[in-house]
Amino acid sequence: MDKKGIAMFENVMEKRIMWGDLDALGIVFYPRYYEWFDACAHQFFEVIGIPQDRLWKDHNIIFGLAETRCRYLSAGRYHERVKILTRLQNLNKKGLTLEHHIVRSEDGQCIVVGTENRICMDTKNPLELKVATIPEMVYQALQKLLADNS
Amino acid sequence: MDKKGIAMFENVMEKRIMWGDLDALGIVFYPRYYEWFDACAHQFFEVIGIPQDRLWKDHNIIFGLAETRCRYLSAGRYHERVKILTRLQNLNKKGLTLEHHIVRSEDGQCIVVGTENRICMDTKNPLELKVATIPEMVYQALQKLLADNS
Amino acid sequence: MDKKGIAMFENVMEKRIMWGDLDALGIVFYPRYYEWFDACAHQFFEVIGIPQDRLWKDHNIIFGLAETRCRYLSAGRYHERVKILTRLQNLNKKGLTLEHHIVRSEDGQCIVVGTENRICMDTKNPLELKVATIPEMVYQALQKLLADNS
Amino acid sequence: MDKKGIAMFENVMEKRIMWGDLDALGIVFYPRYYEWFDACAHQFFEVIGIPQDRLWKDHNIIFGLAETRCRYLSAGRYHERVKILTRLQNLNKKGLTLEHHIVRSEDGQCIVVGTENRICMDTKNPLELKVATIPEMVYQALQKLLADNS
Repeated sequence: MDKKGIAMFENVMEKRIMWGDLDALGIVFYPRYYEWFDACAHQFFEVIGIPQDRLWKDHNIIFGLAETRCRYLSAGRYHERVKILTRLQNLNKKGLTLEHHIVRSEDGQCIVVGTENRICMDTKNPLELKVATIPEMVYQALQKLLADNS
Repeated sequence: MDKKGIAMFENVMEKRIMWGDLDALGIVFYPRYYEWFDACAHQFFEVIGIPQDRLWKDHNIIFGLAETRCRYLSAGRYHERVKILTRLQNLNKKGLTLEHHIVRSEDGQCIVVGTENRICMDTKNPLELKVATIPEMVYQALQKLLADNS
Repeated sequence: MDKKGIAMFENVMEKRIMWGDLDALGIVFYPRYYEWFDACAHQFFEVIGIPQDRLWKDHNIIFGLAETRCRYLSAGRYHERVKILTRLQNLNKKGLTLEHHIVRSEDGQCIVVGTENRICMDTKNPLELKVATIPEMVYQALQKLLADNS
Repeated sequence: MDKKGIAMFENVMEKRIMWGDLDALGIVFYPRYYEWFDACAHQFFEVIGIPQDRLWKDHNIIFGLAETRCRYLSAGRYHERVKILTRLQNLNKKGLTLEHHIVRSEDGQCIVVGTENRICMDTKNPLELKVATIPEMVYQALQKLLADNS
Protein backbone atom coordinates (compact mmCIF):
# COMPACT_ATOMS: atom_id res chain seq x y z
CA MET A 1 0.00 0.00 0.00
CA ASP A 2 2.86 2.34 0.76
CA LYS A 3 4.29 4.26 -2.10
CA LYS A 4 7.91 5.19 -1.74
CA GLY A 5 9.77 6.88 -4.45
CA ILE A 6 11.94 9.63 -5.79
CA ALA A 7 10.01 12.82 -5.26
CA MET A 8 9.74 14.72 -8.51
CA PHE A 9 8.80 17.93 -6.80
CA GLU A 10 10.72 19.81 -4.16
CA ASN A 11 9.48 22.95 -2.45
CA VAL A 12 12.16 25.52 -1.59
CA MET A 13 11.81 28.12 1.15
CA GLU A 14 14.59 30.66 1.58
CA LYS A 15 15.19 31.91 5.08
CA ARG A 16 17.60 33.89 7.09
CA ILE A 17 18.66 32.93 10.60
CA MET A 18 17.80 35.80 12.90
CA TRP A 19 18.91 36.93 16.37
CA GLY A 20 15.74 35.55 17.95
CA ASP A 21 16.50 32.06 16.60
CA LEU A 22 19.75 31.83 18.57
CA ASP A 23 20.47 30.43 22.00
CA ALA A 24 23.10 31.60 24.47
CA LEU A 25 25.83 29.75 22.53
CA GLY A 26 24.97 31.85 19.46
CA ILE A 27 23.61 28.87 17.53
CA VAL A 28 20.04 28.09 16.49
CA PHE A 29 17.83 26.84 19.35
CA TYR A 30 16.69 23.51 17.91
CA PRO A 31 12.87 23.84 18.29
CA ARG A 32 13.09 26.69 15.78
CA TYR A 33 13.99 24.15 13.07
CA TYR A 34 10.72 22.36 13.71
CA GLU A 35 8.83 25.65 13.43
CA TRP A 36 10.40 26.10 10.03
CA PHE A 37 9.59 22.53 8.98
CA ASP A 38 5.95 23.11 9.86
CA ALA A 39 5.89 26.33 7.86
CA CYS A 40 7.52 24.55 4.92
CA ALA A 41 4.99 21.72 5.13
CA HIS A 42 2.14 24.21 4.89
CA GLN A 43 3.79 25.92 1.95
CA PHE A 44 4.43 22.54 0.32
CA PHE A 45 0.75 21.60 0.54
CA GLU A 46 -0.27 24.96 -0.86
CA VAL A 47 2.12 24.81 -3.80
CA ILE A 48 0.91 21.36 -4.86
CA GLY A 49 -2.69 22.60 -4.78
CA ILE A 50 -4.01 21.26 -1.47
CA PRO A 51 -3.70 24.19 0.96
CA GLN A 52 -4.29 23.14 4.58
CA ASP A 53 -6.77 25.91 5.33
CA ARG A 54 -9.01 24.83 2.44
CA LEU A 55 -8.72 21.15 3.42
CA TRP A 56 -9.77 22.16 6.91
CA LYS A 57 -12.55 24.62 6.10
CA ASP A 58 -13.99 22.84 3.05
CA HIS A 59 -13.24 19.17 3.70
CA ASN A 60 -12.88 18.93 7.50
CA ILE A 61 -9.49 17.26 7.29
CA ILE A 62 -5.96 18.35 8.02
CA PHE A 63 -2.56 16.64 7.96
CA GLY A 64 -1.66 16.45 11.65
CA LEU A 65 1.52 15.14 13.20
CA ALA A 66 2.13 11.54 14.22
CA GLU A 67 5.91 11.70 14.59
CA THR A 68 8.78 14.08 13.86
CA ARG A 69 12.53 13.62 13.80
CA CYS A 70 15.53 15.80 13.20
CA ARG A 71 19.30 15.37 12.90
CA TYR A 72 21.65 18.29 13.51
CA LEU A 73 24.77 18.11 11.38
CA SER A 74 26.21 21.59 11.76
CA ALA A 75 25.21 24.64 13.81
CA GLY A 76 23.17 27.43 12.20
CA ARG A 77 24.46 30.91 13.02
CA TYR A 78 23.52 34.61 13.01
CA HIS A 79 22.28 35.99 9.72
CA GLU A 80 23.23 32.92 7.69
CA ARG A 81 21.00 32.36 4.70
CA VAL A 82 19.56 28.89 4.31
CA LYS A 83 17.35 27.05 1.86
CA ILE A 84 14.83 24.54 3.18
CA LEU A 85 14.05 21.81 0.64
CA THR A 86 10.86 19.85 1.26
CA ARG A 87 9.68 16.79 -0.58
CA LEU A 88 7.22 13.95 -0.23
CA GLN A 89 9.07 10.85 0.80
CA ASN A 90 6.34 8.35 1.49
CA LEU A 91 2.57 8.08 1.03
CA ASN A 92 -0.13 5.69 2.17
CA LYS A 93 -3.91 5.79 2.41
CA LYS A 94 -3.90 7.49 5.82
CA GLY A 95 -0.79 9.58 5.83
CA LEU A 96 2.51 10.70 4.39
CA THR A 97 6.08 11.56 5.24
CA LEU A 98 7.73 14.86 4.39
CA GLU A 99 11.49 15.21 4.37
CA HIS A 100 13.15 18.58 4.93
CA HIS A 101 16.78 19.43 4.22
CA ILE A 102 18.20 22.72 5.49
CA VAL A 103 21.09 23.79 3.32
CA ARG A 104 23.42 26.68 4.11
CA SER A 105 23.32 28.90 1.04
CA GLU A 106 26.90 30.11 1.26
CA ASP A 107 28.59 26.73 0.88
CA GLY A 108 25.72 24.37 -0.01
CA GLN A 109 26.28 22.27 3.11
CA CYS A 110 23.29 20.44 4.52
CA ILE A 111 23.16 21.41 8.20
CA VAL A 112 19.89 19.83 9.35
CA VAL A 113 17.68 16.96 8.12
CA GLY A 114 14.17 16.46 9.43
CA THR A 115 11.11 14.36 8.74
CA GLU A 116 7.48 14.75 9.61
CA ASN A 117 5.07 11.82 9.58
CA ARG A 118 1.68 13.39 9.06
CA ILE A 119 -1.65 11.62 9.22
CA CYS A 120 -4.94 12.65 7.73
CA MET A 121 -7.19 13.78 10.58
CA ASP A 122 -10.92 14.34 10.57
CA THR A 123 -11.53 17.73 12.23
CA LYS A 124 -15.35 17.65 12.22
CA ASN A 125 -15.32 17.44 15.98
CA PRO A 126 -12.23 19.47 16.89
CA LEU A 127 -12.39 18.11 20.43
CA GLU A 128 -12.04 14.55 19.17
CA LEU A 129 -9.67 14.42 16.21
CA LYS A 130 -9.74 11.05 14.41
CA VAL A 131 -7.54 9.41 11.81
CA ALA A 132 -9.17 9.49 8.38
CA THR A 133 -8.52 8.12 4.91
CA ILE A 134 -7.02 10.70 2.58
CA PRO A 135 -9.76 11.83 0.13
CA GLU A 136 -9.20 10.27 -3.30
CA MET A 137 -8.53 13.52 -5.15
CA VAL A 138 -6.01 14.63 -2.55
CA TYR A 139 -4.37 11.21 -2.63
CA GLN A 140 -4.02 11.38 -6.39
CA ALA A 141 -2.51 14.87 -6.24
CA LEU A 142 0.06 13.54 -3.77
CA GLN A 143 0.70 10.33 -5.70
CA LYS A 144 1.68 12.28 -8.79
CA LEU A 145 4.61 13.67 -6.80
CA LEU A 146 6.10 10.24 -6.27
CA ALA A 147 7.93 8.79 -9.21
CA ASP A 148 7.44 5.06 -9.50
CA ASN A 149 10.68 3.38 -8.57
CA SER A 150 9.50 -0.20 -8.97
CA MET B 1 30.66 0.71 25.60
CA ASP B 2 27.02 1.76 25.67
CA LYS B 3 25.23 1.50 28.95
CA LYS B 4 21.53 0.96 28.67
CA GLY B 5 19.42 0.41 31.70
CA ILE B 6 16.45 1.16 33.83
CA ALA B 7 16.88 4.73 34.94
CA MET B 8 16.68 4.99 38.68
CA PHE B 9 16.07 8.69 38.64
CA GLU B 10 13.30 10.58 36.87
CA ASN B 11 12.99 14.35 36.82
CA VAL B 12 9.44 15.71 36.90
CA MET B 13 8.45 19.13 35.59
CA GLU B 14 4.86 20.25 36.04
CA LYS B 15 3.48 22.49 33.39
CA ARG B 16 0.28 24.02 32.20
CA ILE B 17 -0.62 24.32 28.53
CA MET B 18 -1.20 28.01 27.79
CA TRP B 19 -3.02 29.95 25.06
CA GLY B 20 0.26 30.80 23.36
CA ASP B 21 1.11 27.11 22.97
CA LEU B 22 -1.95 26.45 20.81
CA ASP B 23 -2.38 26.50 17.06
CA ALA B 24 -5.47 27.46 15.09
CA LEU B 25 -7.02 24.04 15.77
CA GLY B 26 -6.79 24.76 19.50
CA ILE B 27 -4.16 22.06 20.09
CA VAL B 28 -0.51 22.42 21.02
CA PHE B 29 1.73 23.53 18.14
CA TYR B 30 4.25 20.70 18.09
CA PRO B 31 7.56 22.65 18.27
CA ARG B 32 6.43 23.78 21.75
CA TYR B 33 6.91 20.19 22.98
CA TYR B 34 10.55 20.35 21.94
CA GLU B 35 10.97 23.66 23.80
CA TRP B 36 9.69 21.90 26.91
CA PHE B 37 11.97 18.91 26.37
CA ASP B 38 14.96 21.22 26.18
CA ALA B 39 13.91 22.98 29.38
CA CYS B 40 13.42 19.60 31.09
CA ALA B 41 16.84 18.43 29.92
CA HIS B 42 18.48 21.49 31.49
CA GLN B 43 16.56 20.94 34.70
CA PHE B 44 17.49 17.25 34.64
CA PHE B 45 21.21 18.08 34.39
CA GLU B 46 20.92 20.59 37.21
CA VAL B 47 19.07 18.24 39.54
CA ILE B 48 21.68 15.50 39.11
CA GLY B 49 24.41 17.97 39.91
CA ILE B 50 25.88 18.83 36.51
CA PRO B 51 24.17 22.13 35.57
CA GLN B 52 24.78 23.09 31.93
CA ASP B 53 25.84 26.65 32.68
CA ARG B 54 28.59 25.43 35.03
CA LEU B 55 29.73 22.77 32.54
CA TRP B 56 29.95 25.52 29.95
CA LYS B 57 31.56 28.28 32.00
CA ASP B 58 33.88 26.09 34.12
CA HIS B 59 34.62 23.11 31.88
CA ASN B 60 34.02 24.41 28.33
CA ILE B 61 31.64 21.61 27.47
CA ILE B 62 27.90 21.39 26.92
CA PHE B 63 25.50 18.61 25.92
CA GLY B 64 24.40 19.69 22.44
CA LEU B 65 21.87 18.02 20.19
CA ALA B 66 22.66 15.32 17.65
CA GLU B 67 19.14 14.06 17.02
CA THR B 68 15.65 14.53 18.43
CA ARG B 69 12.41 12.61 17.91
CA CYS B 70 8.85 12.90 19.11
CA ARG B 71 5.64 10.89 18.81
CA TYR B 72 2.26 12.55 19.31
CA LEU B 73 -0.31 10.23 20.85
CA SER B 74 -3.03 12.63 21.86
CA ALA B 75 -3.56 16.39 21.45
CA GLY B 76 -2.67 18.76 24.28
CA ARG B 77 -5.31 21.42 24.92
CA TYR B 78 -5.94 24.77 26.62
CA HIS B 79 -5.06 24.95 30.30
CA GLU B 80 -4.51 21.23 30.70
CA ARG B 81 -1.96 20.38 33.36
CA VAL B 82 0.79 17.99 32.36
CA LYS B 83 3.77 16.34 33.96
CA ILE B 84 6.95 15.90 31.94
CA LEU B 85 9.00 12.93 33.12
CA THR B 86 12.63 12.90 32.02
CA ARG B 87 15.11 10.10 32.47
CA LEU B 88 18.46 8.95 31.17
CA GLN B 89 17.94 6.14 28.69
CA ASN B 90 21.37 5.55 27.30
CA LEU B 91 24.93 6.64 27.95
CA ASN B 92 28.24 6.30 26.16
CA LYS B 93 31.62 8.00 26.36
CA LYS B 94 30.62 10.84 24.03
CA GLY B 95 26.93 11.30 24.63
CA LEU B 96 23.63 10.22 26.09
CA THR B 97 19.94 9.85 25.34
CA LEU B 98 17.20 11.47 27.37
CA GLU B 99 13.63 10.24 27.15
CA HIS B 100 10.71 12.52 27.96
CA HIS B 101 7.12 11.45 28.60
CA ILE B 102 4.39 14.06 28.75
CA VAL B 103 1.54 12.81 30.89
CA ARG B 104 -1.83 14.56 31.21
CA SER B 105 -2.33 15.08 34.93
CA GLU B 106 -6.10 14.70 34.91
CA ASP B 107 -6.21 11.12 33.63
CA GLY B 108 -2.58 9.99 33.68
CA GLN B 109 -2.56 9.42 29.92
CA CYS B 110 0.77 9.75 28.14
CA ILE B 111 0.14 12.18 25.27
CA VAL B 112 3.65 12.72 23.89
CA VAL B 113 6.94 10.76 23.97
CA GLY B 114 10.20 12.36 22.91
CA THR B 115 13.89 11.60 22.91
CA GLU B 116 16.96 13.75 22.65
CA ASN B 117 20.35 12.35 21.65
CA ARG B 118 22.85 14.76 23.10
CA ILE B 119 26.57 14.76 22.54
CA CYS B 120 29.30 16.26 24.64
CA MET B 121 30.62 19.30 22.78
CA ASP B 122 33.80 21.24 23.40
CA THR B 123 32.82 24.95 23.44
CA LYS B 124 36.33 26.41 23.77
CA ASN B 125 36.01 27.86 20.31
CA PRO B 126 32.31 28.64 20.07
CA LEU B 127 32.66 29.13 16.32
CA GLU B 128 33.90 25.58 15.88
CA LEU B 129 32.08 23.25 18.27
CA LYS B 130 33.67 19.81 18.44
CA VAL B 131 32.58 16.45 19.82
CA ALA B 132 34.37 15.68 23.10
CA THR B 133 34.66 12.81 25.56
CA ILE B 134 32.48 13.29 28.62
CA PRO B 135 34.75 14.23 31.57
CA GLU B 136 35.20 11.28 33.91
CA MET B 137 33.46 12.83 36.91
CA VAL B 138 30.46 13.84 34.83
CA TYR B 139 30.35 10.37 33.26
CA GLN B 140 30.33 8.75 36.67
CA ALA B 141 27.53 11.01 37.90
CA LEU B 142 25.49 9.97 34.87
CA GLN B 143 26.38 6.31 35.14
CA LYS B 144 25.00 6.14 38.66
CA LEU B 145 21.59 6.95 37.20
CA LEU B 146 21.56 3.83 35.08
CA ALA B 147 20.74 0.59 36.88
CA ASP B 148 22.69 -2.32 35.46
CA ASN B 149 20.27 -4.59 33.66
CA SER B 150 22.78 -7.13 32.47
CA MET C 1 -16.77 55.91 32.81
CA ASP C 2 -13.26 54.67 33.45
CA LYS C 3 -12.60 53.11 36.77
CA LYS C 4 -9.05 53.40 37.96
CA GLY C 5 -8.04 52.18 41.32
CA ILE C 6 -5.82 50.20 43.55
CA ALA C 7 -6.30 46.60 42.55
CA MET C 8 -7.19 44.49 45.53
CA PHE C 9 -6.29 41.27 43.81
CA GLU C 10 -2.98 40.30 42.30
CA ASN C 11 -2.33 37.04 40.47
CA VAL C 12 1.13 35.54 40.95
CA MET C 13 2.77 33.17 38.49
CA GLU C 14 6.12 31.67 39.40
CA LYS C 15 8.46 30.93 36.57
CA ARG C 16 11.97 29.95 35.85
CA ILE C 17 14.00 31.45 33.01
CA MET C 18 15.09 28.60 30.75
CA TRP C 19 17.83 28.14 28.14
CA GLY C 20 15.33 28.55 25.32
CA ASP C 21 14.32 32.00 26.59
CA LEU C 22 17.83 33.39 26.12
CA ASP C 23 19.40 35.19 23.21
CA ALA C 24 23.04 35.08 22.10
CA LEU C 25 23.99 37.55 24.85
CA GLY C 26 22.68 35.08 27.43
CA ILE C 27 19.78 37.34 28.43
CA VAL C 28 16.05 36.87 27.88
CA PHE C 29 14.92 37.55 24.29
CA TYR C 30 12.31 40.25 24.90
CA PRO C 31 9.29 38.75 23.02
CA ARG C 32 9.36 35.94 25.62
CA TYR C 33 8.23 38.44 28.25
CA TYR C 34 5.11 39.15 26.21
CA GLU C 35 4.42 35.40 25.92
CA TRP C 36 4.53 35.24 29.71
CA PHE C 37 2.27 38.29 30.07
CA ASP C 38 -0.30 36.64 27.83
CA ALA C 39 -0.16 33.43 29.85
CA CYS C 40 -0.51 35.45 33.09
CA ALA C 41 -3.50 37.34 31.67
CA HIS C 42 -5.26 34.05 30.89
CA GLN C 43 -4.49 32.76 34.34
CA PHE C 44 -5.69 36.04 35.88
CA PHE C 45 -9.04 35.77 34.10
CA GLU C 46 -9.42 32.17 35.21
CA VAL C 47 -8.62 32.88 38.82
CA ILE C 48 -11.19 35.67 39.07
CA GLY C 49 -13.82 33.36 37.61
CA ILE C 50 -14.05 34.43 33.98
CA PRO C 51 -11.85 31.94 32.09
CA GLN C 52 -11.21 33.00 28.51
CA ASP C 53 -12.15 29.64 26.97
CA ARG C 54 -15.59 29.75 28.62
CA LEU C 55 -16.12 33.39 27.59
CA TRP C 56 -15.28 32.35 24.05
CA LYS C 57 -17.20 29.06 23.81
CA ASP C 58 -20.25 30.09 25.89
CA HIS C 59 -20.52 33.85 25.34
CA ASN C 60 -18.73 34.47 22.03
CA ILE C 61 -16.44 37.09 23.48
CA ILE C 62 -12.77 37.25 24.31
CA PHE C 63 -10.43 39.93 25.65
CA GLY C 64 -8.21 40.66 22.64
CA LEU C 65 -5.25 43.01 22.45
CA ALA C 66 -5.45 46.68 21.52
CA GLU C 67 -2.03 47.77 22.73
CA THR C 68 0.88 46.38 24.72
CA ARG C 69 3.93 47.99 26.27
CA CYS C 70 6.96 46.84 28.19
CA ARG C 71 9.91 48.43 29.96
CA TYR C 72 13.10 46.46 30.58
CA LEU C 73 14.86 47.48 33.78
CA SER C 74 17.34 44.65 34.24
CA ALA C 75 18.28 41.59 32.18
CA GLY C 76 16.76 38.19 33.00
CA ARG C 77 19.31 35.36 33.02
CA TYR C 78 19.66 31.57 32.91
CA HIS C 79 17.72 29.62 35.50
CA GLU C 80 16.72 32.69 37.52
CA ARG C 81 13.41 32.31 39.31
CA VAL C 82 10.92 35.11 38.83
CA LYS C 83 7.45 35.98 40.02
CA ILE C 84 5.04 37.66 37.64
CA LEU C 85 2.46 39.79 39.44
CA THR C 86 -0.63 40.69 37.43
CA ARG C 87 -3.36 43.08 38.43
CA LEU C 88 -6.22 45.01 36.92
CA GLN C 89 -5.20 48.61 36.51
CA ASN C 90 -8.07 50.14 34.62
CA LEU C 91 -11.56 49.17 33.47
CA ASN C 92 -14.17 50.64 31.17
CA LYS C 93 -17.27 49.36 29.41
CA LYS C 94 -15.35 48.01 26.43
CA GLY C 95 -12.00 47.00 27.84
CA LEU C 96 -9.43 46.91 30.58
CA THR C 97 -5.74 47.29 31.31
CA LEU C 98 -3.63 44.64 32.99
CA GLU C 99 -0.30 45.51 34.54
CA HIS C 100 2.42 42.88 34.94
CA HIS C 101 5.52 43.18 37.12
CA ILE C 102 8.28 40.61 36.77
CA VAL C 103 10.22 40.36 40.01
CA ARG C 104 13.45 38.41 40.45
CA SER C 105 12.81 36.05 43.34
CA GLU C 106 16.35 36.07 44.69
CA ASP C 107 16.55 39.77 45.48
CA GLY C 108 13.00 41.03 44.97
CA GLN C 109 14.11 43.40 42.21
CA CYS C 110 11.52 44.30 39.57
CA ILE C 111 13.24 43.61 36.24
CA VAL C 112 10.38 44.14 33.75
CA VAL C 113 7.08 46.07 33.78
CA GLY C 114 4.46 45.52 31.11
CA THR C 115 0.90 46.49 30.35
CA GLU C 116 -1.74 45.02 28.11
CA ASN C 117 -4.76 47.03 26.95
CA ARG C 118 -7.36 44.42 26.14
CA ILE C 119 -10.71 45.05 24.53
CA CYS C 120 -13.82 42.92 24.63
CA MET C 121 -14.23 41.36 21.18
CA ASP C 122 -17.26 39.65 19.70
CA THR C 123 -16.03 36.36 18.19
CA LYS C 124 -19.31 35.23 16.63
CA ASN C 125 -17.82 35.71 13.20
CA PRO C 126 -14.14 34.85 13.78
CA LEU C 127 -13.29 36.33 10.40
CA GLU C 128 -14.63 39.72 11.45
CA LEU C 129 -13.85 40.36 15.10
CA LYS C 130 -15.72 43.38 16.48
CA VAL C 131 -15.41 45.47 19.62
CA ALA C 132 -18.19 44.63 22.08
CA THR C 133 -19.47 45.90 25.41
CA ILE C 134 -18.32 43.76 28.34
CA PRO C 135 -21.30 41.66 29.53
CA GLU C 136 -22.73 43.08 32.77
CA MET C 137 -21.87 40.07 34.94
CA VAL C 138 -18.30 39.99 33.69
CA TYR C 139 -18.02 43.74 34.19
CA GLN C 140 -19.19 43.43 37.76
CA ALA C 141 -16.73 40.63 38.48
CA LEU C 142 -13.95 42.88 37.22
CA GLN C 143 -15.19 45.97 39.01
CA LYS C 144 -14.99 44.21 42.35
CA LEU C 145 -11.25 43.96 41.82
CA LEU C 146 -10.83 47.70 41.73
CA ALA C 147 -10.89 49.43 45.07
CA ASP C 148 -12.61 52.80 44.84
CA ASN C 149 -9.99 55.50 45.25
CA SER C 150 -12.29 58.47 44.88
CA MET D 1 20.21 66.71 21.99
CA ASP D 2 17.45 64.62 20.54
CA LYS D 3 17.14 64.51 16.83
CA LYS D 4 13.67 63.85 15.54
CA GLY D 5 12.92 63.90 11.92
CA ILE D 6 11.48 62.41 8.81
CA ALA D 7 13.44 59.25 8.21
CA MET D 8 14.83 59.21 4.70
CA PHE D 9 15.49 55.50 4.76
CA GLU D 10 13.02 52.71 5.38
CA ASN D 11 13.93 49.05 5.55
CA VAL D 12 11.35 46.64 4.13
CA MET D 13 11.06 43.00 5.14
CA GLU D 14 8.53 40.83 3.36
CA LYS D 15 6.97 38.06 5.38
CA ARG D 16 4.23 35.55 5.25
CA ILE D 17 2.05 34.71 8.23
CA MET D 18 2.41 31.00 8.92
CA TRP D 19 0.36 28.39 10.81
CA GLY D 20 2.76 28.52 13.76
CA ASP D 21 2.15 32.26 14.18
CA LEU D 22 -1.57 31.76 14.88
CA ASP D 23 -3.43 31.30 18.13
CA ALA D 24 -6.58 29.28 18.73
CA LEU D 25 -8.71 32.07 17.23
CA GLY D 26 -6.78 31.73 13.98
CA ILE D 27 -5.13 35.15 14.33
CA VAL D 28 -1.50 36.04 14.98
CA PHE D 29 -0.41 35.49 18.60
CA TYR D 30 0.83 38.98 19.48
CA PRO D 31 4.36 38.19 20.80
CA ARG D 32 5.17 37.01 17.27
CA TYR D 33 4.95 40.64 16.07
CA TYR D 34 7.69 41.57 18.51
CA GLU D 35 9.85 38.70 17.22
CA TRP D 36 9.45 40.15 13.75
CA PHE D 37 10.25 43.70 14.96
CA ASP D 38 13.47 42.44 16.51
CA ALA D 39 14.43 40.66 13.30
CA CYS D 40 13.64 43.81 11.31
CA ALA D 41 15.71 45.93 13.69
CA HIS D 42 18.72 43.66 13.14
CA GLN D 43 18.21 43.81 9.39
CA PHE D 44 17.83 47.59 9.57
CA PHE D 45 21.16 47.95 11.37
CA GLU D 46 22.84 45.69 8.87
CA VAL D 47 21.47 47.49 5.82
CA ILE D 48 22.67 50.89 7.08
CA GLY D 49 26.14 49.47 7.64
CA ILE D 50 26.27 48.86 11.38
CA PRO D 51 25.46 45.14 11.79
CA GLN D 52 24.81 44.18 15.43
CA ASP D 53 27.17 41.20 15.41
CA ARG D 54 30.08 43.38 14.30
CA LEU D 55 29.19 46.09 16.85
CA TRP D 56 29.19 43.38 19.50
CA LYS D 57 32.30 41.41 18.46
CA ASP D 58 34.45 44.36 17.33
CA HIS D 59 33.24 47.26 19.46
CA ASN D 60 31.68 45.60 22.55
CA ILE D 61 28.40 47.44 22.16
CA ILE D 62 24.91 46.43 21.11
CA PHE D 63 21.57 48.22 20.87
CA GLY D 64 19.55 46.62 23.66
CA LEU D 65 15.94 47.24 24.57
CA ALA D 66 14.73 49.87 27.03
CA GLU D 67 11.06 49.88 26.06
CA THR D 68 8.78 48.45 23.38
CA ARG D 69 5.19 49.20 22.41
CA CYS D 70 2.73 47.89 19.89
CA ARG D 71 -0.80 48.74 18.71
CA TYR D 72 -2.95 46.12 16.99
CA LEU D 73 -5.27 47.61 14.39
CA SER D 74 -6.43 44.54 12.51
CA ALA D 75 -5.86 40.79 12.94
CA GLY D 76 -3.19 39.04 10.89
CA ARG D 77 -4.37 35.73 9.40
CA TYR D 78 -3.14 32.47 7.84
CA HIS D 79 -0.85 32.82 4.86
CA GLU D 80 -1.38 36.57 4.46
CA ARG D 81 1.62 38.35 3.04
CA VAL D 82 2.81 41.43 4.90
CA LYS D 83 5.52 44.05 4.55
CA ILE D 84 7.26 45.34 7.63
CA LEU D 85 8.56 48.87 7.19
CA THR D 86 11.21 49.98 9.68
CA ARG D 87 12.64 53.45 10.10
CA LEU D 88 14.60 55.50 12.56
CA GLN D 89 12.26 57.83 14.40
CA ASN D 90 14.42 59.36 17.04
CA LEU D 91 18.10 59.51 17.97
CA ASN D 92 20.10 60.77 20.91
CA LYS D 93 23.62 60.22 22.22
CA LYS D 94 22.70 57.07 24.14
CA GLY D 95 19.93 55.51 22.15
CA LEU D 96 17.36 55.58 19.39
CA THR D 97 13.78 54.71 18.54
CA LEU D 98 12.78 52.45 15.67
CA GLU D 99 9.25 52.48 14.33
CA HIS D 100 7.80 49.44 12.57
CA HIS D 101 4.65 49.37 10.44
CA ILE D 102 3.20 46.03 9.37
CA VAL D 103 1.22 46.45 6.17
CA ARG D 104 -0.96 43.75 4.64
CA SER D 105 0.27 43.36 1.08
CA GLU D 106 -3.09 42.53 -0.46
CA ASP D 107 -4.86 45.80 0.41
CA GLY D 108 -2.06 48.02 1.75
CA GLN D 109 -3.76 48.30 5.14
CA CYS D 110 -1.52 48.90 8.15
CA ILE D 111 -2.48 46.23 10.68
CA VAL D 112 0.15 46.73 13.41
CA VAL D 113 2.38 49.63 14.54
CA GLY D 114 5.24 49.09 16.94
CA THR D 115 8.17 50.98 18.39
CA GLU D 116 11.37 49.90 20.02
CA ASN D 117 13.42 52.22 22.23
CA ARG D 118 16.92 50.84 22.08
CA ILE D 119 19.87 51.98 24.12
CA CYS D 120 23.55 51.57 23.42
CA MET D 121 24.88 48.97 25.85
CA ASP D 122 28.47 48.18 26.72
CA THR D 123 28.83 44.37 26.55
CA LYS D 124 32.44 44.14 27.76
CA ASN D 125 31.22 42.42 30.90
CA PRO D 126 28.19 40.48 29.65
CA LEU D 127 27.11 39.86 33.25
CA GLU D 128 26.86 43.58 33.90
CA LEU D 129 25.55 45.38 30.84
CA LYS D 130 25.89 49.17 31.10
CA VAL D 131 24.46 52.10 29.15
CA ALA D 132 27.07 53.59 26.84
CA THR D 133 27.42 56.57 24.53
CA ILE D 134 26.94 55.65 20.89
CA PRO D 135 30.39 55.69 19.20
CA GLU D 136 30.79 58.78 17.05
CA MET D 137 31.02 56.98 13.70
CA VAL D 138 27.93 54.94 14.45
CA TYR D 139 26.09 58.06 15.61
CA GLN D 140 26.93 59.84 12.37
CA ALA D 141 25.76 56.89 10.28
CA LEU D 142 22.45 57.02 12.12
CA GLN D 143 22.15 60.78 11.98
CA LYS D 144 22.36 60.74 8.20
CA LEU D 145 19.10 58.78 8.20
CA LEU D 146 17.20 61.59 9.88
CA ALA D 147 16.25 64.46 7.64
CA ASP D 148 16.37 67.75 9.44
CA ASN D 149 12.83 69.00 9.88
CA SER D 150 13.65 72.19 11.74
